[in-house]
Amino acid sequence: MNTANQYQDCIDACNACAVACNTCFAQCLQETDVQMMARCIALDADCAAICTLAANAMARNSEMAKHFCRLCSEVCLACAHECEQHHHAHCQACAKACKKCAQACLDMLN
Amino acid sequence: MNTANQYQDCIDACNACAVACNTCFAQCLQETDVQMMARCIALDADCAAICTLAANAMARNSEMAKHFCRLCSEVCLACAHECEQHHHAHCQACAKACKKCAQACLDMLN
Amino acid sequence: MNTANQYQDCIDACNACAVACNTCFAQCLQETDVQMMARCIALDADCAAICTLAANAMARNSEMAKHFCRLCSEVCLACAHECEQHHHAHCQACAKACKKCAQACLDMLN
Amino acid sequence: MNTANQYQDCIDACNACAVACNTCFAQCLQETDVQMMARCIALDADCAAICTLAANAMARNSEMAKHFCRLCSEVCLACAHECEQHHHAHCQACAKACKKCAQACLDMLN
Repeated sequence: MNTANQYQDCIDACNACAVACNTCFAQCLQETDVQMMARCIALDADCAAICTLAANAMARNSEMAKHFCRLCSEVCLACAHECEQHHHAHCQACAKACKKCAQACLDMLN
Repeated sequence: MNTANQYQDCIDACNACAVACNTCFAQCLQETDVQMMARCIALDADCAAICTLAANAMARNSEMAKHFCRLCSEVCLACAHECEQHHHAHCQACAKACKKCAQACLDMLN
Repeated sequence: MNTANQYQDCIDACNACAVACNTCFAQCLQETDVQMMARCIALDADCAAICTLAANAMARNSEMAKHFCRLCSEVCLACAHECEQHHHAHCQACAKACKKCAQACLDMLN
Repeated sequence: MNTANQYQDCIDACNACAVACNTCFAQCLQETDVQMMARCIALDADCAAICTLAANAMARNSEMAKHFCRLCSEVCLACAHECEQHHHAHCQACAKACKKCAQACLDMLN
């Protein structure tokens, strides 16, 4: 019985993206210009949620895994686009993790 | 400030569907023919997960809510199709909740 | 086969609390004094997460359900205490839903 | 602005445990003796859920993180105890990941 998972790279990218989004979320809330960060915070929450769901579904070898990853890639790109517009280090780190995860999801579809 | 949510009907359908899927999951595990129920159990887990995510996103008025609900409707229909093939009361109840939730998600998109 | 759930009242309270927390989260992000709402937003996210987990576990008749509900009651009370300090209608509504959910969780333990 | 997380080791252990639990869940459903695995499957679902919640909360630097990790360690130990009783490689791998995660959560509390 093989306990390794065919989707391990994408699972790792989703988990790393969820950490980056949650970190960005928490640090945005500590910024002095938090009102400017409202959309970033909201997208961080969305992106962490779908990354987490996708990682869990891939680990279960779900027949729906590709559907979840397709949507995950879309939410990651939306979050990356918003984060890129802010100079904060946590936003830049989050944008990078989101783009990496979006690509891992697209790779997994093929 | 209005604390009501424009998506309340769809949130309620998603939460009811998650309960039905989780109930079906637990009761499938108690069946004597549990091997026959493996795909039902797996889809119950997928469907409960996306219903829960969609309900939370709608309650946050997420800009991604429609994307989540579109996928939720697809997973609900897959789960309903599997559940309908089993005579257990919990499967029939789950199929019904899944179809109602799929429709609520489609209605919410328009 | 009985498809009803012994924990239905507590499941309903958890789902209602998750909606109230997510609503408060989204509306806090739209306030002009959002920096003042940072702890409220963070606790809303924690509380929605544990309410959702507890509701799903109860619906699965999980042997861990009481453990999840004990912690859920504690997080609900922390969130209620923070929300009560803000005059916004969504905060007051959230505090009320949190206290109701905390009580439902304590009732479920006995 | 430091984007690293003080809880990174525990986050990694929680994510690895969630993967192991979800893998065990899926592979238990494929076993011929799936009825014997019912409690293992149920605990896998509980454990993956609380590991995921704890990882997300730690990444948000949640003030509730220690509460979530204390419960996570308890659920991990219950899941490990069940998995250890089965000879399947996925159960043994899951038991090991659960015990490692339980220890990481206890370490994080201190």
